[in-house]
Amino acid sequence: MATFHEYVEQNRERFLNELKDFTSQPSVAAQKLGMTEMAHKVKARLEKLGAQTKLIPVEGGFPVVYGEIGDGAKTLLIYDHYDVQPPEPFELWDSPPWEPEIRDGKFYARGVADNKSDTLLRMQAVESWLATEGALPLKIKWVIEGEEEIGSPNLGKFVAANRALIAGADGCLWEFGAKDSHENPMLICGLKGIVYVELHAHGANRDLHSGAASIVENPAWRLVWALSTLKNERDEITIDGYAETVREPNALELEAASHIPFDTNLELEKYGIKQFINGVRDFDAVKKLYFTPTVTICGLHSGYTGPGGKTVLPNHAFVKLDFRLVPDQTPDAILKLLRQHLDAHGFQDIEIHLTETGEHVARSPLDSDIVKAAQAAARATYGREAVVFPTAAGSGPMYDLCQQLNIPAVSAGAGYPDSRGHAPNENIRVADYFQGITFIRELIKNFAAN
Amino acid sequence: MATFHEYVEQNRERFLNELKDFTSQPSVAAQKLGMTEMAHKVKARLEKLGAQTKLIPVEGGFPVVYGEIGDGAKTLLIYDHYDVQPPEPFELWDSPPWEPEIRDGKFYARGVADNKSDTLLRMQAVESWLATEGALPLKIKWVIEGEEEIGSPNLGKFVAANRALIAGADGCLWEFGAKDSHENPMLICGLKGIVYVELHAHGANRDLHSGAASIVENPAWRLVWALSTLKNERDEITIDGYAETVREPNALELEAASHIPFDTNLELEKYGIKQFINGVRDFDAVKKLYFTPTVTICGLHSGYTGPGGKTVLPNHAFVKLDFRLVPDQTPDAILKLLRQHLDAHGFQDIEIHLTETGEHVARSPLDSDIVKAAQAAARATYGREAVVFPTAAGSGPMYDLCQQLNIPAVSAGAGYPDSRGHAPNENIRVADYFQGITFIRELIKNFAAN
Repeated sequence: MATFHEYVEQNRERFLNELKDFTSQPSVAAQKLGMTEMAHKVKARLEKLGAQTKLIPVEGGFPVVYGEIGDGAKTLLIYDHYDVQPPEPFELWDSPPWEPEIRDGKFYARGVADNKSDTLLRMQAVESWLATEGALPLKIKWVIEGEEEIGSPNLGKFVAANRALIAGADGCLWEFGAKDSHENPMLICGLKGIVYVELHAHGANRDLHSGAASIVENPAWRLVWALSTLKNERDEITIDGYAETVREPNALELEAASHIPFDTNLELEKYGIKQFINGVRDFDAVKKLYFTPTVTICGLHSGYTGPGGKTVLPNHAFVKLDFRLVPDQTPDAILKLLRQHLDAHGFQDIEIHLTETGEHVARSPLDSDIVKAAQAAARATYGREAVVFPTAAGSGPMYDLCQQLNIPAVSAGAGYPDSRGHAPNENIRVADYFQGITFIRELIKNFAAN
Repeated sequence: MATFHEYVEQNRERFLNELKDFTSQPSVAAQKLGMTEMAHKVKARLEKLGAQTKLIPVEGGFPVVYGEIGDGAKTLLIYDHYDVQPPEPFELWDSPPWEPEIRDGKFYARGVADNKSDTLLRMQAVESWLATEGALPLKIKWVIEGEEEIGSPNLGKFVAANRALIAGADGCLWEFGAKDSHENPMLICGLKGIVYVELHAHGANRDLHSGAASIVENPAWRLVWALSTLKNERDEITIDGYAETVREPNALELEAASHIPFDTNLELEKYGIKQFINGVRDFDAVKKLYFTPTVTICGLHSGYTGPGGKTVLPNHAFVKLDFRLVPDQTPDAILKLLRQHLDAHGFQDIEIHLTETGEHVARSPLDSDIVKAAQAAARATYGREAVVFPTAAGSGPMYDLCQQLNIPAVSAGAGYPDSRGHAPNENIRVADYFQGITFIRELIKNFAAN
């Protein structure tokens, strides 16, 4: 009988073909694109393992793929998502986002890093275990949702309605993860919160010849002025009452963060920039990256943006803003402050449209059994210590699925620093993918044993 | 033999079909779309009159259609343009911009008001004169350029190279004009200057996941901050040194402007707004409209602007800005102030791309022979006094073609206040079109006689 590693090696080509199959299926929740097809693909892959599966409908949203396999004293919850970010702008991709392509040992496709590779390799690791080591030593439960990239608006409701399925799990392996710039595996124990809005400004009942601009208000200027009151050039968020919502990191979190390697020059070079905001470097950059909240202009539009000059006074302008939150901020409180701030500064006319209902900040214990098992798995797989992060700079529904049910969580995955999640040319390194399969075997073994 | 009016009536349908032919031909200089086809169409129409014509090439630009017909003591110069504004956004048109359609007595198509109707009806008036009144009592020279909507970047060079053709004309009938909200014909004797630029801000070497926003500069924020230093919420342009470039209108100009009817409530209703900028009304609104300079955000773009939420940190942002100028501002001086201002305020990184080389401010005498002839023609055609404007709120190359050669100019045309120049659903009223033909007959008669 083959060993685990031999089995993986023998099935290498099929495993990659399965990844091609997953990533050639568009599944953009924001654009309602290909979601049903992808949900069925994921469910079918779980069934191939022999797992009990169901599609659990979500009112007004895309269904959750639920799966269950194995038995043992411990239960491992695995959280993944089958939706991905929109692929635009298409013209910046070197190969089309829905046509997976391996070049120079890297696998390019929209969603491959975030998080179709991890979704699939976790299943392939279970398949390889079953084929070579027999029964699983624990129970695995999968929750694979379809709305992570639009802020998991319905996962809280899903958890409330299916609490019995999830509560009591001993630990959760969270979606998506990566090695850092020094090839250290990263284990992430928390996430920033998020709330995503559009601000809209309106002018006349139609676009006008710009000759009218002396007397007819331009909504693009209104939006610029309103935005300029939200954050200043020193990167201080100047929304009234905002500073009071931010709790500084505690000593334990700072201690953990002090072990995060950060090569400032390497990072600057990676992004092609001369300095970080306010010139921060080294540990100051680490603290700013993980422990400060942000407000980001993700998109901005008004008027004519084609070639050449069109002398038009636009009648509409909008911005897409995401707010990343830290303790003790909540989506609701930030939304309320934003409305009050705009009103107080004379921008009652600026409409706030809630794009995503928001996600809470999550911080999971840094010394839980699942973290310890992941540390051991990292040692066994990569031959080095993992770096434990109190939080990522990104967001997700860890609060809804884990923290509110007291399930410790840790995130680990097959990405690397140049994976370009959410951006053109998203990719993973093929070698990381197969190491990721080994990591899952080691995690199962260690989590079941301790 | 038919009278002028009988002839026009007999040829009504053909004249409208010719207008359909002109407006179904796209001719967008900014997009290099259909320009050659349109130039030949215009030239052919002049030839049909028996005019001597030529296409005069313009280095690096679109050719000027030149035409000459008739003889007499006086020479009337006619200035028109065969290019039009881009039609975008297509979805806001009730009928497609390149498929002319008459509905409820209105003729809809891109460019019909600005200025294909006037271009054509002036030729049809000459045809009708020749067919019913014999030889023309003066010489007419046409200069019909192809780059008016992109700021006539080459007309100055054209005039320099063809000075002998143009110099010595006794008056110029300028392109494009309209009745006001009270059905008064408007005669316009000046234009604002203009300079059109794009400002570009750049960030990292690619779009990033917005988790990086705590440390990686966002060019969209840079652009917002830079823009917010150019103009404030009281509509004051706050570019360093800008105020000193503005000369207030003189007593004669103010006197003329005081006769411009302006029904504030009617105008507000037309635009669907509650008030004008700073709440100006009546004569204050007139003065602000015609005598103050502007800086207008014509277009604004960054990042993801599609449906739903994409949590992206964009690496590029740009704005399209037009500056409308008043005496004694010049395009070059404003560009220089803008660069100095951005540098002085810490925005050395914001690039200025010159979209259009700019046009000078023009002010023509209010009591010239051509204005007097137009006033008499208005009385004869419309049975009422024209309103004489010292300047329009828009721009054009009147300085290059007329003012620098001391040729008095006046603008008059077949538009009306809801013509939606530069905007979706551009249109003219068919009745105005045929009155416009009569107006040209009266103008020729009166200008030749006095």
